[in-house]
Amino acid sequence: MNKIKVGIIGLGNVGSSVIRVLRKNSALIAQRTGLNIEIAKAADVRNRKSVAGKAYTKDVARVIDDPEISIVIECIGGVDPAKKYILAAIRKGKHVVTSNKEVIAKHGKEIIAAAKQAGVHVLFEGAVCGGIPILHPIRECLAANRITEISGIVNGTTNYILTRMTRDGISFEAALAQAQKKGFAEADPAMDLDGSDAAYKAAILAYVASGSFLDVNRIYREGISKIAPEDIEYAKEIGYVIKLLAIIKIGNNELEARVHPTLVEANHPLAKVSDNFNAVFVRTDAMGDAMFYGEGAGGLPTASSVLSDVIEISKKLGCCVEEPHYPKANKMRIRDIGDIRSRYYIRLEAPDSPGVLAKISGVFAKKKVSIQEVVQRESKGKTAQIVIILHENREKDIRAALKVISRLPVVKRICSVIRVGIE
Amino acid sequence: MNKIKVGIIGLGNVGSSVIRVLRKNSALIAQRTGLNIEIAKAADVRNRKSVAGKAYTKDVARVIDDPEISIVIECIGGVDPAKKYILAAIRKGKHVVTSNKEVIAKHGKEIIAAAKQAGVHVLFEGAVCGGIPILHPIRECLAANRITEISGIVNGTTNYILTRMTRDGISFEAALAQAQKKGFAEADPAMDLDGSDAAYKAAILAYVASGSFLDVNRIYREGISKIAPEDIEYAKEIGYVIKLLAIIKIGNNELEARVHPTLVEANHPLAKVSDNFNAVFVRTDAMGDAMFYGEGAGGLPTASSVLSDVIEISKKLGCCVEEPHYPKANKMRIRDIGDIRSRYYIRLEAPDSPGVLAKISGVFAKKKVSIQEVVQRESKGKTAQIVIILHENREKDIRAALKVISRLPVVKRICSVIRVGIE
Repeated sequence: MNKIKVGIIGLGNVGSSVIRVLRKNSALIAQRTGLNIEIAKAADVRNRKSVAGKAYTKDVARVIDDPEISIVIECIGGVDPAKKYILAAIRKGKHVVTSNKEVIAKHGKEIIAAAKQAGVHVLFEGAVCGGIPILHPIRECLAANRITEISGIVNGTTNYILTRMTRDGISFEAALAQAQKKGFAEADPAMDLDGSDAAYKAAILAYVASGSFLDVNRIYREGISKIAPEDIEYAKEIGYVIKLLAIIKIGNNELEARVHPTLVEANHPLAKVSDNFNAVFVRTDAMGDAMFYGEGAGGLPTASSVLSDVIEISKKLGCCVEEPHYPKANKMRIRDIGDIRSRYYIRLEAPDSPGVLAKISGVFAKKKVSIQEVVQRESKGKTAQIVIILHENREKDIRAALKVISRLPVVKRICSVIRVGIE
Repeated sequence: MNKIKVGIIGLGNVGSSVIRVLRKNSALIAQRTGLNIEIAKAADVRNRKSVAGKAYTKDVARVIDDPEISIVIECIGGVDPAKKYILAAIRKGKHVVTSNKEVIAKHGKEIIAAAKQAGVHVLFEGAVCGGIPILHPIRECLAANRITEISGIVNGTTNYILTRMTRDGISFEAALAQAQKKGFAEADPAMDLDGSDAAYKAAILAYVASGSFLDVNRIYREGISKIAPEDIEYAKEIGYVIKLLAIIKIGNNELEARVHPTLVEANHPLAKVSDNFNAVFVRTDAMGDAMFYGEGAGGLPTASSVLSDVIEISKKLGCCVEEPHYPKANKMRIRDIGDIRSRYYIRLEAPDSPGVLAKISGVFAKKKVSIQEVVQRESKGKTAQIVIILHENREKDIRAALKVISRLPVVKRICSVIRVGIE
């Protein structure tokens, strides 16, 4: 039996769940893997003796400095002091497991570089979609594939809100209130609603798929607060569902990474992912398409992912080749949002009078933006709602055309601009 | 760079796809994993020099006996001669990768025992659902979880037929003809239609989840040929979709494994898996629920899985601990189909006259089978269609009750008995 001593930093929901799952299933893990994983020390500034028993310590240094501990699990969350502790553990030659999406998305490059130098593993399956196995399957199971696209519903809060808006026809504000009542949105849901949380996960997915860490601040993001019930309704009429997607496309040394509401075809598997569920859709050259689906949050699910990382590293510790292989990263250029190509859904208000469509179409034609479909919706008084679906065009050209259109005297207001995909 | 020489036996669709993917992506694989995987020899009795180049040989022994080859990929399919070659390679100390569901389902116990004795790895990700990563995620990513249930749509042919029947309201025969026309059903689709193919996959999933190989002949199976358009319609009316599921439930030293048509709640993720797609739904104590979705067949997708197994083994070859860990299998009792508990959908024909329902209900009551709902459907002439939904009951009791009911003078015919799940 291979005995592995691990240390935990942070005994909140995830940290205490790790202890709980390990206590419950350690015999099963031993039987399956031959590993005897023991929590040697578990630190939290708050007294958590009731959770960790005699492993409990108030002092993080006692985890990081313990020569018997080979794997440190960071469960604090956020950047400070998590990053400091992760780097300290790495420098002490410890392998690190974390479910901290923010610190990996923002400082993954530095953390991986430090790990490479120290010859240790850093794994973070729990950082994306809680308990759903995603990073490991992409890294290991698809290792023979060229991954061309990843599209994910990676934020449960916004998916819950969009699902309520779609099913009940209610406003964003009403759906948000419901989400908060049901515990699917935090008191301050800003990071979820504006796409930041999804952007963290996009950065991590992009790294695992491409080997390159990109600057998370350069990931284009748009939240869901401007989505109107009308957009959801019109989308439905033309066979689409609106979802907040994290989209990664990988080309030859060029990477596209963006987070925004997207019209997804109603029969695409992602369109059917409802409520607080998460799913990641992956497209590759050999495997084709696959989707990984499940609940994307929670202490126990995240603990499952954390422990799978611990087990993966532990299996390697018996080997004489301890040096982990970090893929050589290609220098990847990040494609500017202006250079992406997409189809678009545009909703605008205009006086219900002849000649309006001709003027709008004229602008698109001049900017070489091709229109797929125009639908004039019901009029309220003298104002008509016009929905325009554009063929795939360059974002830059569409923005330029919309700028001109917004100034046309016949256009009252451009209400919504939503990208249409995924194909 | 770690050079790994592999051999292939069988150059049909899968074997030649393995060569194709490896040729295309070997630089990518090397960059990601540090492995240089080379096809040293590839055997087929038919001349396949055009596929394998100078690695081609007519003689399987040249693959198995080559001391430089450390991993043998078996791509023949079927039991004979695949089993013989797999065992020969194992005895020569080679690790084996195969996508052959039949040989693993039928002879996995013997093959794994031989591998354990020889200290080699045997992996078979491609045997279940083509390119979708399933076995590896269950084995590795869920290693800290107690897996309680696996329910899978693991046969594309039957899922395509049921989808057509559901969408177009056509008969089984008409849908089968369509499937054959579209290439989703073979000329002789017997193994797909009667549930045998799904039973192979159920046996393999049960092994990976429990560590025990059960006798595949003891897996209860029912095919889809008796499903009538009426059943699909009535199921829809009460909020269900009919799917052919492979169901595995793991309890304390007792295993349930069965393949049969099942009424799946319309909002369950498995209900939304359409056409020729496959999906495996997994329930565990820590992670909760997850689903793995994708295309379940095809040369390139299966090659993706085969190569992920090759890469997994290759990574371990650099280690001094080469001895693979095979989980100690608990002695698992297979639960008899009579002892399973399930809800049921029953459709029968009876004269449209008073007192019929009372008689039928009386029989169920006597056998202590509780009824959830009875719906009398439209009458054709003097015959009424009666649909009965039973609460969860023991299969044995239901069968006993149905035997009595079938003999009631007021019952013309029991048309359908379909289990209802998954919860």
